[in-house]
Amino acid sequence: MSLLVIGSVAFDAIETPFGKTDKIVGGAATYASLAASYFCDSVKIVGVVGDDFPQDEIDDFGRHHIDTEGLQIIEGEKSFFWSGKYHNDMNSRDTLITELNVLGSFDPIIPESYQDCEFLMLGNLSPQVQQTVINRLKNRPKLVVMDTMNFWMDVALDDLLATIKMVDVLAINDAEARQLSGEFSLVKAAHKILSMGPKYLIIKKGEHGALLFSDGLIFSAPALPLAEVFDPTGAGDTFAGGFIGYLAKVGTVNFNNMKNAIIYGSALASFCVEKFGTEKLRNLTQQEIAARVQQFVSLSEFKII
Amino acid sequence: MSLLVIGSVAFDAIETPFGKTDKIVGGAATYASLAASYFCDSVKIVGVVGDDFPQDEIDDFGRHHIDTEGLQIIEGEKSFFWSGKYHNDMNSRDTLITELNVLGSFDPIIPESYQDCEFLMLGNLSPQVQQTVINRLKNRPKLVVMDTMNFWMDVALDDLLATIKMVDVLAINDAEARQLSGEFSLVKAAHKILSMGPKYLIIKKGEHGALLFSDGLIFSAPALPLAEVFDPTGAGDTFAGGFIGYLAKVGTVNFNNMKNAIIYGSALASFCVEKFGTEKLRNLTQQEIAARVQQFVSLSEFKII
Repeated sequence: MSLLVIGSVAFDAIETPFGKTDKIVGGAATYASLAASYFCDSVKIVGVVGDDFPQDEIDDFGRHHIDTEGLQIIEGEKSFFWSGKYHNDMNSRDTLITELNVLGSFDPIIPESYQDCEFLMLGNLSPQVQQTVINRLKNRPKLVVMDTMNFWMDVALDDLLATIKMVDVLAINDAEARQLSGEFSLVKAAHKILSMGPKYLIIKKGEHGALLFSDGLIFSAPALPLAEVFDPTGAGDTFAGGFIGYLAKVGTVNFNNMKNAIIYGSALASFCVEKFGTEKLRNLTQQEIAARVQQFVSLSEFKII
Repeated sequence: MSLLVIGSVAFDAIETPFGKTDKIVGGAATYASLAASYFCDSVKIVGVVGDDFPQDEIDDFGRHHIDTEGLQIIEGEKSFFWSGKYHNDMNSRDTLITELNVLGSFDPIIPESYQDCEFLMLGNLSPQVQQTVINRLKNRPKLVVMDTMNFWMDVALDDLLATIKMVDVLAINDAEARQLSGEFSLVKAAHKILSMGPKYLIIKKGEHGALLFSDGLIFSAPALPLAEVFDPTGAGDTFAGGFIGYLAKVGTVNFNNMKNAIIYGSALASFCVEKFGTEKLRNLTQQEIAARVQQFVSLSEFKII
């Protein structure tokens, strides 16, 4: 089934204890659509870039069968740019530069050929833009997944709450779940957030895995313990893209399929952090993904006798 | 098979956001032996108390079939006393009072009837005392599990390293694993710590579960997401007691049985935190434990198709 991904398509400059990059291609929609493309052969991007965005990067989306008809190129303007530096623990980072550029006035236009999309991934963007995309689709998709971050809780809480009400799955990290709910216990936080609208809540816990909550059910997914995290940028977007891409592939939305989707999303994210930027994500094989998923099985299975 | 548990038997005064207690019975050996007693009917304590320790508390060990022949009562002296206050997040606490009392000069005496113990739990105590227990056993137990904490890394590192070398399983938390190894990545930390002697390393991550490392294998156990943690005191000791108690019950030590042991230990710990002190641990049924373990199964199982 087809999947619409909206989010930033951007440049990042990243510094980690392992090295630093010049401007490389990043952005939520980039990571999410690349991850989803390993499961779903009909991924369609809505986004915006400036005329500084290289054509061969756009062509590369095509090589992953990602449709870029909805990627606007604004002449005479620049792409969104983010620069950040990770601390030694890789769990925290400082933002050095944020240049909104084309993203500041982004009006998401949905091409007619995207209108039949059954799955919608709202990558991290202003909740108002996320909401506009839902409103501009003639038919509500079968599943709407929303990623967001603490920044929008601080500056646009009302818009955020209105958008959260319209989605099926919300994916946020543990600190964000605590901030949004005002509850420290993640069980209580989940209960409150599910009462805000979504049927499913995913709480991402980085190196501690992820939790899925829905209607009294809880699933705890492990994270793969890694000897080295090279660059965590995009791991959350990759997770979300792998998650919804897998669901778009299997087509049926239920708790059991969501559990597997979380494992596939986690597997893709575990690849993402092995190299700078999207490098690792661009050259995976189905065999590598299957082997990585098998590692998640071995890691967490036990048999009570 | 029989299990020897050594550790503190003590008084605690605890303050949490939910309330505060007067002096109640606590201590590593208390929690660990109570937890183990649900699996193993031959648990034997080595410890020390003052003459302020109530006889009916000692009798209560008997009601759980815990042998207290090795529990020394020092006339005219006081039992170890710890008082602490948990912060609102329940993940951090301040120690208000530590009175070593009888523990300051503790010389662990092993009764003759304990000499045949096949399983040995070294609860958190000075590493020198832990080592003395191993040395005073005529036959080395089949399995020696050691719990410790950052305090001993700060004040008695050489003793600690010497004791770690003699044990089969080391159980510490993630911050302690990082401190002991000097590595941030838990995979690298585990690799270094396993090279210090133990065959197995358990890294306890509190609300994020636990990791078991051995010889290239890793198991990730979930923690049960709880709406309310009433009092975390003793959760780690309870985990360790449930873990070794389960292994003493099944008798065979291998990676698969250790995985189940971690789940049983985690289940017991999840009960422990539901009430103040040892209250919940004293009145569990096998049915409650089996149902709780089933919750861990539901929480973490997925089937890749």
